[in-house]
Amino acid sequence: MNPLSDLVVQDPWKIIQNGFSNENNKKYESLCAIGNGHMGQRATFEEDFSGATHSGSYMAGIYYPDKTRVGWWKNGYPEYFAKVINSTNWIGLSIKLNDQKIDLAQAKIESFERTLDMQTGLLTRSFVATLPEGEKISVKAKRYCSAVDREIGVVEYELTIIEGEGKIQIKPFLDGDVMNEDSNYELKFWEETKKQIGNSEAYLEMKTKKLDFYFGSAMKFSIIKNKQELSFKGNEQSKKKYAAVVVKNKFEQGDIFKIQKLVANCTSRDCDATTLEEKCHDALAKAHMHGFEKLEADHIAKWAATWKDCDIVIEGDVAAQQAIRFNIFQLYQTYTGHDPRLNIGPKGFTGEKYGGSTYWDTEAYCLPFYMATTSQDVARTLLIYRHKHLQKAIENAEKLGFKNGAALYPMVTMNGEECHNEWEITFEEIHRNGAIAYAIFNYVKHTEDSVYLAEYGFEVLVGIARFWAQRVNWSEAKKQYVMLGVTGPNEYENNVNNNWYSNYLAAWCLRYTLEVAEFLQANHSNEFVTLCGKLNFDLTESKDKWMHISDNMHYPKMENSDVYLQQEGYLDKENITCADLPLSERPLNQKWSWDRILRSPFIKQADVLQGIYFFEDQFSQDELKANFDFYEPRTVHESSLSPCIHSVLASKLGYNEKAYGLFLRTSRLDLDDYNREVHEGLHITSMAGTWIALVQGFGGMRVENNMLTFRPHVPKEWTSFEFSIVFRGVRVSIKCRENGVELKSNAPISIQVYNDKFDLDGSNSIVVKTE
Amino acid sequence: MNPLSDLVVQDPWKIIQNGFSNENNKKYESLCAIGNGHMGQRATFEEDFSGATHSGSYMAGIYYPDKTRVGWWKNGYPEYFAKVINSTNWIGLSIKLNDQKIDLAQAKIESFERTLDMQTGLLTRSFVATLPEGEKISVKAKRYCSAVDREIGVVEYELTIIEGEGKIQIKPFLDGDVMNEDSNYELKFWEETKKQIGNSEAYLEMKTKKLDFYFGSAMKFSIIKNKQELSFKGNEQSKKKYAAVVVKNKFEQGDIFKIQKLVANCTSRDCDATTLEEKCHDALAKAHMHGFEKLEADHIAKWAATWKDCDIVIEGDVAAQQAIRFNIFQLYQTYTGHDPRLNIGPKGFTGEKYGGSTYWDTEAYCLPFYMATTSQDVARTLLIYRHKHLQKAIENAEKLGFKNGAALYPMVTMNGEECHNEWEITFEEIHRNGAIAYAIFNYVKHTEDSVYLAEYGFEVLVGIARFWAQRVNWSEAKKQYVMLGVTGPNEYENNVNNNWYSNYLAAWCLRYTLEVAEFLQANHSNEFVTLCGKLNFDLTESKDKWMHISDNMHYPKMENSDVYLQQEGYLDKENITCADLPLSERPLNQKWSWDRILRSPFIKQADVLQGIYFFEDQFSQDELKANFDFYEPRTVHESSLSPCIHSVLASKLGYNEKAYGLFLRTSRLDLDDYNREVHEGLHITSMAGTWIALVQGFGGMRVENNMLTFRPHVPKEWTSFEFSIVFRGVRVSIKCRENGVELKSNAPISIQVYNDKFDLDGSNSIVVKTE
Repeated sequence: MNPLSDLVVQDPWKIIQNGFSNENNKKYESLCAIGNGHMGQRATFEEDFSGATHSGSYMAGIYYPDKTRVGWWKNGYPEYFAKVINSTNWIGLSIKLNDQKIDLAQAKIESFERTLDMQTGLLTRSFVATLPEGEKISVKAKRYCSAVDREIGVVEYELTIIEGEGKIQIKPFLDGDVMNEDSNYELKFWEETKKQIGNSEAYLEMKTKKLDFYFGSAMKFSIIKNKQELSFKGNEQSKKKYAAVVVKNKFEQGDIFKIQKLVANCTSRDCDATTLEEKCHDALAKAHMHGFEKLEADHIAKWAATWKDCDIVIEGDVAAQQAIRFNIFQLYQTYTGHDPRLNIGPKGFTGEKYGGSTYWDTEAYCLPFYMATTSQDVARTLLIYRHKHLQKAIENAEKLGFKNGAALYPMVTMNGEECHNEWEITFEEIHRNGAIAYAIFNYVKHTEDSVYLAEYGFEVLVGIARFWAQRVNWSEAKKQYVMLGVTGPNEYENNVNNNWYSNYLAAWCLRYTLEVAEFLQANHSNEFVTLCGKLNFDLTESKDKWMHISDNMHYPKMENSDVYLQQEGYLDKENITCADLPLSERPLNQKWSWDRILRSPFIKQADVLQGIYFFEDQFSQDELKANFDFYEPRTVHESSLSPCIHSVLASKLGYNEKAYGLFLRTSRLDLDDYNREVHEGLHITSMAGTWIALVQGFGGMRVENNMLTFRPHVPKEWTSFEFSIVFRGVRVSIKCRENGVELKSNAPISIQVYNDKFDLDGSNSIVVKTE
Repeated sequence: MNPLSDLVVQDPWKIIQNGFSNENNKKYESLCAIGNGHMGQRATFEEDFSGATHSGSYMAGIYYPDKTRVGWWKNGYPEYFAKVINSTNWIGLSIKLNDQKIDLAQAKIESFERTLDMQTGLLTRSFVATLPEGEKISVKAKRYCSAVDREIGVVEYELTIIEGEGKIQIKPFLDGDVMNEDSNYELKFWEETKKQIGNSEAYLEMKTKKLDFYFGSAMKFSIIKNKQELSFKGNEQSKKKYAAVVVKNKFEQGDIFKIQKLVANCTSRDCDATTLEEKCHDALAKAHMHGFEKLEADHIAKWAATWKDCDIVIEGDVAAQQAIRFNIFQLYQTYTGHDPRLNIGPKGFTGEKYGGSTYWDTEAYCLPFYMATTSQDVARTLLIYRHKHLQKAIENAEKLGFKNGAALYPMVTMNGEECHNEWEITFEEIHRNGAIAYAIFNYVKHTEDSVYLAEYGFEVLVGIARFWAQRVNWSEAKKQYVMLGVTGPNEYENNVNNNWYSNYLAAWCLRYTLEVAEFLQANHSNEFVTLCGKLNFDLTESKDKWMHISDNMHYPKMENSDVYLQQEGYLDKENITCADLPLSERPLNQKWSWDRILRSPFIKQADVLQGIYFFEDQFSQDELKANFDFYEPRTVHESSLSPCIHSVLASKLGYNEKAYGLFLRTSRLDLDDYNREVHEGLHITSMAGTWIALVQGFGGMRVENNMLTFRPHVPKEWTSFEFSIVFRGVRVSIKCRENGVELKSNAPISIQVYNDKFDLDGSNSIVVKTE
């Protein structure tokens, strides 16, 4: 199937599915997923559905430590592999007309629409269908996870009888008897601990196996029949891990049943498990008191406020407009910074792949987005998250044989412990450690928050630097330091020697940590003395050793060229490029065996180029060009984290068409399902890369000379684009047109556009003309 | 715990455990395991035992295709991971005295002995113990898996009442409700399909999940009380997957109960499942007719005949004598060549690790043993096993992207399909393919069976050669062929480039296949024409291409030295040797994390040296010495397949003490539990390596100048050693003493001793004096 054969409708604010197809159902369940940072879910149906579906309703921070001891065991493997787990289905609403379930897989569908409105954060659905025995109905459903009262989920379901009459049964339910799609041996992760069912309400409390997370859902519903609240005697229906109330009534042509279901979802992460039921009921009562109208109005208002700060407006290109909003919207559905124990899972609340844990994606991709679109506290919170995990990172390094406070942050984590179990990743994809150091550097550059360095950052940097200093070894053969057995960002190579990016990052990290030490010594001398004692850190001794490593690191390079080699021996590979690859063999990770991928020269994602991107001021434009021209033709971009970096670099090189193509690819990765896997969930963390490609690429946003800087160019497909950046407490808005740039700020600030400095007065806009 | 603190009693023919220890129980369950090629089991107790035990009873060729889709999936992964599975416990005999079970974990043990008699193939056990309520008993148990009637298992159990009186309950049973130790998520592999219980007999039939292997066990027992056959009314005791007969009686001091249990174990591998019960009953009836005495006498006679051919007698060193017999005995318990569909699992019938499937161990280690100790049909059968799997090997290669009949034999297999799931092994440890080609070469050299080449061997060779020709690629940088992304025999390196051994083997394989082609063209021209047609093989074209590869292969080498580098970049590793490793860090695979092992220079098992061993006539003694002196100090020998090869090479270099030390290590690997894992089972396939170390190392046995050749040296710890070799249908016996060698054959033959030729007349022995 051509992935582009079923294109998403282009709309500046909405994701619309027009017409139903069983084959595409899971795809739209992903695309229309909703969430509020506390909880979220795929856009599955409220009513029964026996067709192709991937039920998934997830609670932030709730996971299951599944076995890693399956198959072969290697020493140093983590104790468990963390899985984000499918939790109680709280949207459920089963309806029978004359004993037939409403089930679109069994009905004749006349019309169908599913819409995610990104402006309001509302998921709606409507359809007209005929049941097997002839009853014809029309349904309008709406739901959301409140962006204000995060525990609250709201479902409104309006059923109109177009034809038919007889008995109707309406059964709102809570179903905790759910399983993960990726469950091994069909293991279920939840046990029931409590249940209560009333006339129009129910409470179901579940507990996870092993870690004893409790999850309570309290629901309350009402039924309005033909605009009159129905009074009914609800019958309890209870089975294991399941609570429902059955309401029976009659229906005839023209009847309209409106079911309003309110649910409060709380977990023992937020309160003592013994008070969970109370907490759910309190939240439910409060929401019920507010009423459906106010709940919805508050929710919409909150989204409006969020959009005010983070929206990017593109004129002249609806596809790009829709895409960038989709990316921003999903990021803010997934992570809001309200809970410092949370982080950003690669699939957010939209699927199970990658376990929902924290990856280096956060530091390398997401941090710049949050740092520039909202209060800097959010970025700081993300960094402090890693500081909280420092002790675990030290223990993780110790498990692998490192000593003296060396820290290796996990590749994947829920609580600081490593929970990924591929040796080539877990033990070897250690550049993640450098990305965390880089994020600190990046944050401080953007915010000038040097207090963070004294409070948190330096400790993290020292742990990371100590790791690198132990991870390299002296090669007698080369008379240089080498780093053996690593996996770079390009995971299509494993266990390579002297990955240029890792070596470069490690050497930089050693130098930067020393710089920070000297900065703190000079500027936060008291704290520095305390830190040195706490960390047993000796600046002189560390400097001797670390500078020796940094000055004598081996960097593989192509002879007589500016091209850095991705790793030792890269040039022994077949000298072919993506142009030699038939389309039928793409994506390689689906078409080729793993060994073939490993042997091939093809690159999954930016690797050398990731380093040049991070440290761009250390490379000339010629060097950038040489490396881009060599690597881009060999890069298959089969990681969602890849095209954005290439796009930024292409922009910098003036490869504008390339930059735009790569931007489109990253921004519409899920909408256009490039990798044919959107049914599994969305690529949440890489969505920040889309933002980067636009803001840093087309917008040319940097921090240079200690000033916010822009070097915009407008893709020729666009009329203009407009975004705003929070920089050191000031919000700067910029609108870029082909012939000029308009800037404004909410407080006085000096900024740089191209190479000139401008002073914004905090109220009036200025216009910078371009050729 | 020091593994040597609990040394096995030294005895030339027996493995004896004197005194019971719960801690060591599993170890002796492994060491005293019994088998007959058709079935086998760990030396667990017949009666109940609530202490530390690893129940394991296995049927050759019965396996379960467990999931490989656990955790992360890589394209090309095999569909399943094959597991040898623990099957119906047919030895079971539960005895209660006054309602207390005989259970050594609950009893006070006065004396205990467990003995495996390797000369007779009998496992016996005796103990005196007092039960919690004071009854004192003495037990003598004996059992074996008949070496003649392979379906038949025999248990004799004699219980003497030393003190006490009251009620006794004797319950012989068949228990199919068993699990694997390595079961994931406690999955059970067997379902019950049939059961019948009579007065003194029972039948239990089980079926495996997924593959529907049926396994029937029919038992019949009698009880002799004080030398009189007891007549009793047996009560059926049946529960799921379990069949037992309960006999009740009284006991008083001095009573002797002798229980004789006869079991026939057949599987649907050997007959239609519908006739399985009949087959079991027939086998049981036949055995019953023979009676216990004849059964045992036949069994012992069969072992005596086996020993006559394969025994090695060492004078002056009981530890070595015991060890070599232990190794030979276990090999002949595991594989006898009677069933061409079977092969040699790494743990035989003694444990579950490695899945009981076929590895390259068979070709590289076991084939030489069987080839030289028994009829050449057995070795031929082992080779034909791979020919039967050729189509699957081609399919396996196709899955990985190879074409045109290239064959990649699986790393691990039950039926020709790959069933191992670590990418670095499954996809990359491809030297196994070469070991199969080498085995063909080795077999033909030993037997001169060129008909085999025409019938089977050439097809296999062409498939393998085609694989190598596609697996290499031309490096523009080196202007040579390279082989990227492999794992050599040293599995402490993964995904390396230009593993010297693999490159050498591949190039040799291309040349050898061409040689065989030319030989067949000249000597079996009709068959050759047919084969060329069948295989679509063009000799000229293949020769051009393959010789170009073979002539231009890259072999990494140390500058200004004869040392071949294990792989590209080996010299970048830390320059340390095993002497730098504290004992507390050994074995590395238990003490070090995987990444540390990978980065280190330490070598698990012979790699470059494996190549020099295989192709010794292509390397000078100086080259051998340079490589041995470089690699042996870096080799930790944490594979059971390693010390034997080093021992042979040390012998060749005149490093006699080293050779002897390595021999002891390989020969007593399990007896002295060097790797602290014998409780998991024995290292069956590497036992052939022990034989190699002795026969090729100390005996200096080779085929040279088309003659069987010996260059013996006697370890100074020994007075003499004596063994015999089957060579082209003639059995040659040799006894080696410090001052000379005595040789005899059972038919006229010319042989070479050191560098001189001698003619044996087939009856008289000759003596060759040495300095």
